[in-house]
Amino acid sequence: MRTVFHDELAQITEDLVGMARLVSSAVTQATTALLDADIQTAEQVIDADEAIDLKRNDLDAHAIDLLARQAPVATDLRTIVTSMRMSADLERMGDLARHVAKLARLRHPEPAVPTELREIVTDMSLVCERIVAKVADCLVSQSMELVDEIQLVDDELDELHRRLYAHFADGQWTHGTEAAVDMALLARYYERFGDHAVSISQRVRFLVTGQEVHTDLAD
Amino acid sequence: MRTVFHDELAQITEDLVGMARLVSSAVTQATTALLDADIQTAEQVIDADEAIDLKRNDLDAHAIDLLARQAPVATDLRTIVTSMRMSADLERMGDLARHVAKLARLRHPEPAVPTELREIVTDMSLVCERIVAKVADCLVSQSMELVDEIQLVDDELDELHRRLYAHFADGQWTHGTEAAVDMALLARYYERFGDHAVSISQRVRFLVTGQEVHTDLAD
Repeated sequence: MRTVFHDELAQITEDLVGMARLVSSAVTQATTALLDADIQTAEQVIDADEAIDLKRNDLDAHAIDLLARQAPVATDLRTIVTSMRMSADLERMGDLARHVAKLARLRHPEPAVPTELREIVTDMSLVCERIVAKVADCLVSQSMELVDEIQLVDDELDELHRRLYAHFADGQWTHGTEAAVDMALLARYYERFGDHAVSISQRVRFLVTGQEVHTDLAD
Repeated sequence: MRTVFHDELAQITEDLVGMARLVSSAVTQATTALLDADIQTAEQVIDADEAIDLKRNDLDAHAIDLLARQAPVATDLRTIVTSMRMSADLERMGDLARHVAKLARLRHPEPAVPTELREIVTDMSLVCERIVAKVADCLVSQSMELVDEIQLVDDELDELHRRLYAHFADGQWTHGTEAAVDMALLARYYERFGDHAVSISQRVRFLVTGQEVHTDLAD
């Protein structure tokens, strides 16, 4: 019985890793769509988000079913409840990738990103890819070093966010108000993507050490 | 035993209502701080957010404790799991109110909101107050009419959001890029506040009808 139960817990972790992979692909493709003004890819990312939402629903249904059937306590209970929080974080990361794709679609056929910001936007996306890969590893290994690394990668994202915002200083910006608002929201999407990655990693820390999670995840 | 259990469930609902009240006060005060460039009130809202976070932690700890002690199934299990999701929504609404207060603090002693946007911003805040009051009622009454009303109130918020964004159209905006970015993010905070309110109301609907929740809550 216990073994079956722990197989089912392992399945939930595997499903979280699967969600992380979909989310990684979504943010990468959404950024490509945005930078290349590629409407087909944008539409694909927008449609594919439903698969991430469904995966979350399945995972949560499985978790609730486990609670009902096994009535776990202590660590096992904490693990299942925490898994549902992680699936919520991953689903939101998928939503954020979709927001990037929606911006590509909204501005199509115009390129949404001014030339001098293409490099920062590319970097933000690459950092997002890197952070979600580390999240997937961290879910499996529960490594505290990875938790720390994820925090450092998120710091890079915050730094890129600051650098992008510096372009909005009075007298600097020459692309009009709408484009500024677009870029501010875009930078925020990537930044929140990173925050959810940190949130997941801190939930891993909580499972391993019992240390409480303190992240700021206001949308 | 069952009665004690249902008393504890009622206590969780009461705690959710308590969180909704704190969140309501936070968004109202944050907007006052913003419109009056009132740094003391801004600081109060920022500090008070910790109380909301703690209330959420207490509520979730209570919920997990109930799961461990009572091993509920079916409706009771769903109610407890859903309560934890609602507490997450309410905590994020508190974070969003704090973001409004932080904008007041960031721009102090300058007023953050250009004169011609004061009315829209005031209206957005009033609608947020109204929607969270309905959420509190809905948590207690589980009224499906209230669920529908909350959706309509959220539509008002989306309409205000669109009206505010219309000010960013090319050639319209005269307050500089930074102020435009500030106002875009501010509008987004109120809009997301409303989305979380809708999310809670749809979770109530789910508890009553078993109908799945479909909301888009990307931060």
